[in-house]
Amino acid sequence: MSALEFPKAPSDKKILEEGAVFSPRFDASGLVTVVVTDAEDGMLLMVAHMNAQALALTLETGIAHYWSRSRNALWKKGETSGNFQHVVEMRTDCDQDALWLRVKVLGHDATCHTGRRSCFYRTVGLIDGKGTLADDGSKPLFDAEKTYRKPL
Amino acid sequence: MSALEFPKAPSDKKILEEGAVFSPRFDASGLVTVVVTDAEDGMLLMVAHMNAQALALTLETGIAHYWSRSRNALWKKGETSGNFQHVVEMRTDCDQDALWLRVKVLGHDATCHTGRRSCFYRTVGLIDGKGTLADDGSKPLFDAEKTYRKPL
Repeated sequence: MSALEFPKAPSDKKILEEGAVFSPRFDASGLVTVVVTDAEDGMLLMVAHMNAQALALTLETGIAHYWSRSRNALWKKGETSGNFQHVVEMRTDCDQDALWLRVKVLGHDATCHTGRRSCFYRTVGLIDGKGTLADDGSKPLFDAEKTYRKPL
Repeated sequence: MSALEFPKAPSDKKILEEGAVFSPRFDASGLVTVVVTDAEDGMLLMVAHMNAQALALTLETGIAHYWSRSRNALWKKGETSGNFQHVVEMRTDCDQDALWLRVKVLGHDATCHTGRRSCFYRTVGLIDGKGTLADDGSKPLFDAEKTYRKPL
């Protein structure tokens, strides 16, 4: 557990937007949205969420922690795969309800659970009036099935 | 209104993650998270949300439309400021609950309502055990107060 706490967001919009106090605005579920890009080339790697504890641990350790909404649990990214994210820079947006992490990915330099470098491997287009996806051809950088296989 | 509709997400994870059908997973409020970067240099400009209608209009017109959660209304970004976003590429992530727009911003090349190019103009750090923000010095590119002033 971390002892780091975050102050309540100020009601004064000017202070929230122009001030120096970090007062993240967690949503009704206690989460903020986190955008994660590669610090070197800017590639968008993933979009995830943090609760106050994950955010505090990230700030204190320099290694990205999230809140897994599917598993309902604290999630130190890379714990199974070795693909930890070293935080090079954290930013927040004007109204402090979103965070941006610029990271260096360790291990296989892969972020997606499919084994690919980025979760955003498909482009969206309209074909014959229907939303259609096209794979960008990025290949898995590790064997996801083997890595995430649950022990018998 | 747009006639474009999106199919329900498949229950088969493999189809959702590897298939060619765009079936965005809107949350309980009917929204998906949208990450917006500059198509040229990759700068993170904003994080916003789309409902099905905003997404359909974006795909059909090539100009980014969002759902404003604060105003509870469809939001054609740039309608007041002239800073429309021309969509160069749209991507979705593995489980199709987030979108990535790579855009060219028209007008003042500014995205933030404070007048700055990006909403992410403050870095987050720990100083004396407290979350502290540092402004990156980016200046307003247009007079936000004048632009967004409500008519008397």
